Amino acid sequence: MTNDPKSNDIFLRACKGESVSRPPVWMMRQAGRYMPEYRALRAQYGILDMIKNPELAAEVTLQPIHAFPLDAAIIFADILTLLEPMGLQLEFISGKGPVFHNPIRETSDVTALKSIDARRDLGFTLEAIRLTRERLAGKVPLIGFSGAPYTLACYAIEGGGSKDFDQVRAWMYAHPNAWASLMDKLTDAVTVYLLGQIESGAQAVQLFDSWAGSMSQADYRRHAAPWTRRIFETLAREAPGIPRIHFSANGGHLLEAVAEMPVDVLSLDWRVDAKAAIDKLGAHRVYQGNLDPARLLASDAAVIEGVREVKQAFAGAKAHIFNLGHGIIKTTPTDRVRLLIEEARKPIE
Amino acid sequence: MTNDPKSNDIFLRACKGESVSRPPVWMMRQAGRYMPEYRALRAQYGILDMIKNPELAAEVTLQPIHAFPLDAAIIFADILTLLEPMGLQLEFISGKGPVFHNPIRETSDVTALKSIDARRDLGFTLEAIRLTRERLAGKVPLIGFSGAPYTLACYAIEGGGSKDFDQVRAWMYAHPNAWASLMDKLTDAVTVYLLGQIESGAQAVQLFDSWAGSMSQADYRRHAAPWTRRIFETLAREAPGIPRIHFSANGGHLLEAVAEMPVDVLSLDWRVDAKAAIDKLGAHRVYQGNLDPARLLASDAAVIEGVREVKQAFAGAKAHIFNLGHGIIKTTPTDRVRLLIEEARKPIE
Repeated sequence: MTNDPKSNDIFLRACKGESVSRPPVWMMRQAGRYMPEYRALRAQYGILDMIKNPELAAEVTLQPIHAFPLDAAIIFADILTLLEPMGLQLEFISGKGPVFHNPIRETSDVTALKSIDARRDLGFTLEAIRLTRERLAGKVPLIGFSGAPYTLACYAIEGGGSKDFDQVRAWMYAHPNAWASLMDKLTDAVTVYLLGQIESGAQAVQLFDSWAGSMSQADYRRHAAPWTRRIFETLAREAPGIPRIHFSANGGHLLEAVAEMPVDVLSLDWRVDAKAAIDKLGAHRVYQGNLDPARLLASDAAVIEGVREVKQAFAGAKAHIFNLGHGIIKTTPTDRVRLLIEEARKPIE
Repeated sequence: MTNDPKSNDIFLRACKGESVSRPPVWMMRQAGRYMPEYRALRAQYGILDMIKNPELAAEVTLQPIHAFPLDAAIIFADILTLLEPMGLQLEFISGKGPVFHNPIRETSDVTALKSIDARRDLGFTLEAIRLTRERLAGKVPLIGFSGAPYTLACYAIEGGGSKDFDQVRAWMYAHPNAWASLMDKLTDAVTVYLLGQIESGAQAVQLFDSWAGSMSQADYRRHAAPWTRRIFETLAREAPGIPRIHFSANGGHLLEAVAEMPVDVLSLDWRVDAKAAIDKLGAHRVYQGNLDPARLLASDAAVIEGVREVKQAFAGAKAHIFNLGHGIIKTTPTDRVRLLIEEARKPIE
């Protein structure tokens, strides 16, 4: 790809810690409801229908790439589809979000979980990746992703969203052996899924640990980190050239544990003080993040101020990939997205 | 009170940093739905009815004191009642939580907010405090409380609960002057309310900043801390003998800013590593917290292990008040509460 003059590989070069002239830019949930093109499709199809139709998933993935000068695409998929072939019945209910109709209650429910085959069970996402790569034609690289095992366990046990997933930690404390077995199974599934994505054309992968922040660091080290680490270790061995990105939402208190893992890029939540993180974890790393997505709802001035603060805060790091500190909010005006990208793309003074 | 041999003032002595033989124990939301006695009353009355009836509020406040060997009572009230006399119409909707029917939308809505008179507007809680003190007869001290201005602003703008209160930060970024004016008004109201509580008999006060954790520390310092600080400074001047406790939920990343305020006790969220906090903020302080409330749902062993870990983690501090790291969960079995208190009360080895 680097040999094609039309290709933009600034994102991949930044992931690898190479010196780049400006921060590459992409946004978590960049393919989504804030875009009129996306809403037009969503009026016709359910979320799972779109994810499971490779043509539609590829189309949605490309929508923000056509609309904005972004430096990476991320495949349109959902962290929860992985749990369906394991045996959990998923439904997205309007106004409520994802619901599993048969969540894990007993330790025997863990035993009953099935192992997955990525091509057989999640082939729609692999095919969407293949199609998207074909259509991107090297314009920008494509990121694959999965939920981290802890976050998947959260939904599997809680059966849906929750404020703090208290029931999950209660289950984890009550059934440490079944918990370990659940995390083993989820880890195997995530690994198979991500390797399948890479084989199908994903050029970088990000693990989303959306609920890691509901645990203390001590519990994270005991009950989550060993499994996440295992995934990254396997990827490092099996797909060594593919950058590995880790994002834990609300995980400022877990950074030291996360930074011990073999990851290429640490993606920071908007609440994390970038300078303090760099002081603690070292300037030799590549960081991604971390504009407060709420700024995009506020005003042009708030976006420009925020982007400048973020760029300045990360200026001391080896490389910085500009991103939001969380997924883009669905009511974000597209003009603000354009402004954000324009400001973020300016070379650092 | 210290002269009465039947009185238990270990909590107040710990707040003041005096050496105590064991950690005093109380629990956030200790008067609440996990207790059958509370649920029996709630079957007859709405939450606001109970709060606004001093007899009922005193009765509920005393329920956990009668049931368990706790070292402090906390008045039964709600952080949101303060917003009603300011002009916001509050309703607790079953299954949904608090809702304000006329949230702040325009900057002119801030101008319209009224200032409060504690006795006239929130006299029910002041009277409940007076009654509770009378009935406690010195058995244990009584804690008063309020929401912190930022958290009150969150509900006033969002109009109810939210995952991350994104709309609130967006409003704050968009309208910095109106934000400052809103925070001024909330700060005045909280100050008046807490001074009224103290005058009525509250022997310590806690500020709950339940949503402070939704901001970065830089934003917290700009948009919240100056007002919270003003409250503590006024209390320190006007009610110097009354211990001041600060709790910011999910606020591990804000601790340095919080610790700069004139507070007697820092109450830590369950996610905060106590040892790391003491390393960072100093062992000369008094800490409160921070058992993960989910442990109480898990097993007796999980409770005992957790209590021991918490006590050990805080052992190096000047004093430690044992508490949960968040409000007790409504499905907590009362036997586990008993076990927690028993284990927490054991002298530190």
